[in-house]
Amino acid sequence: MSGEEGPAQQQEPEQVKKPDEPPPAEAAEAKPESSSSSPAAAEEEQPISYRALVLTGYGGYDKIKLQVKSMKKSQLKAGEVLVRVKACGLNFAELLGRQGLYDLLPAPPVTMGMEGSGVIEAVAEDVTDRKVGDRVIAMKRHGMWQEVAVVPANRTFPIPEAMSFEEAAALPINYMTAYMMLFEMANLRPGKSVLIHMAAGGVGIAATQLCQTVQDVTIFGTASASKHETISQGGVTHPIDYRTKDYVTEIRKINPKGVDIVLDPLGGADTQKGFGLLKPLGMLIVFGTANCVTGQKKNLLAMAKTWYNQLTLNTLKLMQTNKAIAGFHLGYITDEELFERTLVKLMELYQQGKIKPRIDSCYHFEEVTEAMKRMHDRQNIGKVILIPEPKKSEEKPQSNTEEAENVGENEAAVSDQKEEAAVEVEAEKD
Amino acid sequence: MSGEEGPAQQQEPEQVKKPDEPPPAEAAEAKPESSSSSPAAAEEEQPISYRALVLTGYGGYDKIKLQVKSMKKSQLKAGEVLVRVKACGLNFAELLGRQGLYDLLPAPPVTMGMEGSGVIEAVAEDVTDRKVGDRVIAMKRHGMWQEVAVVPANRTFPIPEAMSFEEAAALPINYMTAYMMLFEMANLRPGKSVLIHMAAGGVGIAATQLCQTVQDVTIFGTASASKHETISQGGVTHPIDYRTKDYVTEIRKINPKGVDIVLDPLGGADTQKGFGLLKPLGMLIVFGTANCVTGQKKNLLAMAKTWYNQLTLNTLKLMQTNKAIAGFHLGYITDEELFERTLVKLMELYQQGKIKPRIDSCYHFEEVTEAMKRMHDRQNIGKVILIPEPKKSEEKPQSNTEEAENVGENEAAVSDQKEEAAVEVEAEKD
Repeated sequence: MSGEEGPAQQQEPEQVKKPDEPPPAEAAEAKPESSSSSPAAAEEEQPISYRALVLTGYGGYDKIKLQVKSMKKSQLKAGEVLVRVKACGLNFAELLGRQGLYDLLPAPPVTMGMEGSGVIEAVAEDVTDRKVGDRVIAMKRHGMWQEVAVVPANRTFPIPEAMSFEEAAALPINYMTAYMMLFEMANLRPGKSVLIHMAAGGVGIAATQLCQTVQDVTIFGTASASKHETISQGGVTHPIDYRTKDYVTEIRKINPKGVDIVLDPLGGADTQKGFGLLKPLGMLIVFGTANCVTGQKKNLLAMAKTWYNQLTLNTLKLMQTNKAIAGFHLGYITDEELFERTLVKLMELYQQGKIKPRIDSCYHFEEVTEAMKRMHDRQNIGKVILIPEPKKSEEKPQSNTEEAENVGENEAAVSDQKEEAAVEVEAEKD
Repeated sequence: MSGEEGPAQQQEPEQVKKPDEPPPAEAAEAKPESSSSSPAAAEEEQPISYRALVLTGYGGYDKIKLQVKSMKKSQLKAGEVLVRVKACGLNFAELLGRQGLYDLLPAPPVTMGMEGSGVIEAVAEDVTDRKVGDRVIAMKRHGMWQEVAVVPANRTFPIPEAMSFEEAAALPINYMTAYMMLFEMANLRPGKSVLIHMAAGGVGIAATQLCQTVQDVTIFGTASASKHETISQGGVTHPIDYRTKDYVTEIRKINPKGVDIVLDPLGGADTQKGFGLLKPLGMLIVFGTANCVTGQKKNLLAMAKTWYNQLTLNTLKLMQTNKAIAGFHLGYITDEELFERTLVKLMELYQQGKIKPRIDSCYHFEEVTEAMKRMHDRQNIGKVILIPEPKKSEEKPQSNTEEAENVGENEAAVSDQKEEAAVEVEAEKD
């Protein structure tokens, strides 16, 4: 059954290489084809074989292996659905996770990946609100980086026709994080000012777009100079090159009183700077510790420095300054209703044209090292996407700085991956 | 000139002893009389003699002395107005200040009092937006507890006709504090739940009323059992007797997930409990350290305990719990526009009948010890008001638990205060 889909799927990677364009018509057409495969599922329980990106131990890029696994649809438990994954999101959490710095990821071996999009290929008997063929966003704590994934139905969210699978995979974590921070924790209202670190990153771009849904919000965004044009066009009022300038000084020049909201994915000394920059009644939200990640492997010195500089506050200090400090981590949110409500809101904003995920680049599973390097080196502007579909041999790794080339279909492309692939025992399910 | 007003003013204390009733008609009529005194100001610079409550050193109730001072109107500087004070608010900050625990109060000797209401009696030449006879709220960092006060015009705020002087004196600090916490810092929205400590206190009652301007807000309020009926009528959904029950347990019984917002005037161990009670995305706002105040004088053990238990947080803890913690202290807010905007909003809510300060009791200046004791012992339900007007000898101290008795006028009443009064040298102005 998945074999039948092979060729159709393999055409997709080319289509998705131009992320900022609307999804090609074929993407929509592919949907009935995927769902038509479900009757085949009735044929007696052929195990589904699928590729998965598995973290095999903590360390460098080589610790993530492309493996082939298998499962049976009959393994679906109550409330679950099986999703044929078309695109996955790469997050900073995976860079941390690979180094053993992400608490929510179980010990290796473990399939990584927290978000993806695809088509529902089977549903458990009791699932009535999802059906085979539905195009959905899917979320898990881990395990989304595989060709098929078993997901609780209430962690799948239907997506609009107009939304490509790459956009859908780019949206949930970055936009939910930005949305909940700006509108649930902070109290973004007209006329406020916001400092967005890593403004060209996934959350940065989501936050920039969401800030613009509110009147008259001033956005300070840090990014290296080469990205300034892009983030300015995206809505950042004042781009700041944090590599050559002190952002505190730059912001004070423009807003002597500081800013109302700081979104801080960095941690350490930057949290202290951000706190200092807050206006009275302002709020700083720490949502990451990117400063911990320097090289490919765990860097004890960087960690020590980040933790040493971690802002520690007592309430007296907060009272004397009239400031608020918050922490945010989507991984620790377990309120299903909040997830649902936030995603519904985001879909509305998408339909209204107010938000649109920006895809930086798409990498096939076998190119996961390049994908991670791109994010680690802060080269991306927008989201880095992983495509489960095997790479065709002629394809080059592509990003939105390169032209996508359609080099035709070649089933033999899978050979690339064979060095790393290892057939594992049955049923990987968490 | 102030002598002319004497009798008129001395009639007022009786009128104001029934705080929950609409202001008597005479209060409004009193206004033209006060303002009519301004022509008299043109007569050659008679110094104005006035009574003031002065903190003479740190310690117990006896450190606050009623003194007689004098000033001249010609001392008004640019931007200032002279207010004939009709009523003043007593705040917990003054209890702290008397013990030397309030940073914003200058060292003794210093006239206390941060808020009051009255009638403008003179304006500096450059002041165009206030005029003699205006009924206003007036705010200062200190120095409001005197019969006449010099105040920057932009710290005076016109009050509606329907608002009594006692209501006006009760409003600014409590309601601005509650409003800014609930709507500027926290993000109170329909369906949320709020824990209000000391729900029968000034800020507690203000916060309860303001919560009810938002749909479907659940209010948990701590107060001793004798006050439950009153605060329930005021809008507290679940009154909790903190003296006999553990409020954490009680709240968890009703809302197992906790609450969205905690307003914490206590500090110390209660801050930790409140933080634990927060739902994800919730916010705790510390706005006081009432736990420091136990006896009449500074209690080093209580202070040490409060500070030892003071919540100290690092950002990692905040991230893992998705919580926010804030500090609020109106005294450190210096944004004039924010003051103005908030008071305008509060006046609107008052006019719409959505808020109404609850006056617990009114005490004359010479009864300041009783007033402070009442607050210290947590006997008050609502605001404790100080009246600059001398007490008539027949009057008994009165609170809203007693019937107000109009015992007529008696100028000789001032004798009560003479033991404490000391004529000071010229011009007390800060």
